Amino acid sequence: MSIDSEQLRTLAAVVAEGSFDAAAQALHLTPSAVSQRIKALEQQVGGVVVRRTRPCLPTPAGEVLVRLAGQVDLLTRDALVELGADAGTDASPDVLGRRRIAVAVNADSLSTWFPAALADLPADLLLDLRREDQDLSATLLRDGTVAAAVTAEQRAVQGCRVRPLGAMRYVAVAAPHARSRWFPAGLDTGSAARAPALAFNRADGLQHAFVRQVLGDAPPLPVHYAPEQGAFVALVQAGLGWGMVPEQAAAGPLADGTLVELEPGRWLDVPLFWQHWSLRTPTLDDLTARVVAAARVLHR
Amino acid sequence: MSIDSEQLRTLAAVVAEGSFDAAAQALHLTPSAVSQRIKALEQQVGGVVVRRTRPCLPTPAGEVLVRLAGQVDLLTRDALVELGADAGTDASPDVLGRRRIAVAVNADSLSTWFPAALADLPADLLLDLRREDQDLSATLLRDGTVAAAVTAEQRAVQGCRVRPLGAMRYVAVAAPHARSRWFPAGLDTGSAARAPALAFNRADGLQHAFVRQVLGDAPPLPVHYAPEQGAFVALVQAGLGWGMVPEQAAAGPLADGTLVELEPGRWLDVPLFWQHWSLRTPTLDDLTARVVAAARVLHR
Repeated sequence: MSIDSEQLRTLAAVVAEGSFDAAAQALHLTPSAVSQRIKALEQQVGGVVVRRTRPCLPTPAGEVLVRLAGQVDLLTRDALVELGADAGTDASPDVLGRRRIAVAVNADSLSTWFPAALADLPADLLLDLRREDQDLSATLLRDGTVAAAVTAEQRAVQGCRVRPLGAMRYVAVAAPHARSRWFPAGLDTGSAARAPALAFNRADGLQHAFVRQVLGDAPPLPVHYAPEQGAFVALVQAGLGWGMVPEQAAAGPLADGTLVELEPGRWLDVPLFWQHWSLRTPTLDDLTARVVAAARVLHR
Repeated sequence: MSIDSEQLRTLAAVVAEGSFDAAAQALHLTPSAVSQRIKALEQQVGGVVVRRTRPCLPTPAGEVLVRLAGQVDLLTRDALVELGADAGTDASPDVLGRRRIAVAVNADSLSTWFPAALADLPADLLLDLRREDQDLSATLLRDGTVAAAVTAEQRAVQGCRVRPLGAMRYVAVAAPHARSRWFPAGLDTGSAARAPALAFNRADGLQHAFVRQVLGDAPPLPVHYAPEQGAFVALVQAGLGWGMVPEQAAAGPLADGTLVELEPGRWLDVPLFWQHWSLRTPTLDDLTARVVAAARVLHR
């Protein structure tokens, strides 16, 4: 059984854009043409492929097809580049002629070492970065929404290969006046229970893990939530509380004295992994090489 | 009719934590006690208040009750502070004794001017910042998940007051070598159609709006998506493409020459608003004063 590639592309557009109307616009089709293609695809595979919700979501069968669509698309565009026939490399304004690849990256990598991987990217390749950590990254890889991910999840997602990138090192920092105020005698159970901590969100257990590592146990911590790297560092500098900050993001503030370490010489290492579709394509191979090279700043 | 405040708090915890089990843990109750309270609340109001999905979501009736719970909680804790009876101000490690307030802030504000509003925050107040822009902020205000929001949405959400904060100014920037490569003759239709642009996500229309403002019309732009402020600026500096960056975030890179403007003297202004529950409480009043003061860096 073969599957019509136009129908696959249509399904991928519906899922990427979130609605039949938006997909029609992106593909320069009428909404009814989109609807007909999806129905034809559903007849061929014998089941519903997309739930008509807002946004439209793929069914389990639809997830398999969306991933297939992305893989076929990537292979096709790479083949066209090899043939020298890619429309995006010349002066044509044809946006659709460019390759597009979606990658999920955890927030702390995205704001520190990851951007260096993308310097001098080929001009005909467009990226769709997603800021997601392990739980959602696995889902996005599985359903084909992203082709690769930088994640703390080390178990290979089905259909993916995984390679270790090294560890992101986090240090515990505070503004100097905040450290004097909250930790006059250093980090102990009493000061940890009183001093406000900053966490990225409710899934961020780094602050708790650090206290447990240093003290052997941790009381409940009073926590502010600030889900943005730049804001997180700025709020720690403003004295709102203490927090675990990637070494790379803390280096400048530590050097200029706007931040100090709570426990110099102590840190937490979080191993990171590169998960990608197990598919050999020049685009994915090149991206893997770039990410591995940029990740050399991480710890082994 | 009065509503049992323990039942309200239980509902709020189920919605905040996402499940009955997590709510039970947060409230130091058994899951069956949580379940009984929710059922009792549903009998009293005569309808389902929370859908047992993953995560648990409030029904429309539940949304009203969650907002009520947050408002009652804030008023109660403010009253306790006034009475000098707040547990969080003394040496007690009782995290639950502190006031907590949730605020939605759009990503660019969160990474630029907003952190300054939170310097020297009262020690007994914990913040739950959410990185959301207008669409979701309105929903979060309406259902009581957040008490206030910095948003580009100027229509008052039901039950809220709105006040203008000034405008966030965005300038069009690129790395010097990227500008030379993509815009040898400046910004015109041809260069806009060829030069990769960076956008935050698919809802970010600033790049398109800027091209339209300068040229009167805009071709389809080839776009990379990078949904994190720090990464966005780093990627523009790395030469991946051009993008609209808040003046405040662009100032340093423009001064050190790692970024240049595409069209010096041109910009886009995005008006921002402070929406908050129409409720007079010292906590909300204090937060409003802080936000308004920090927003003085915005444009009038």
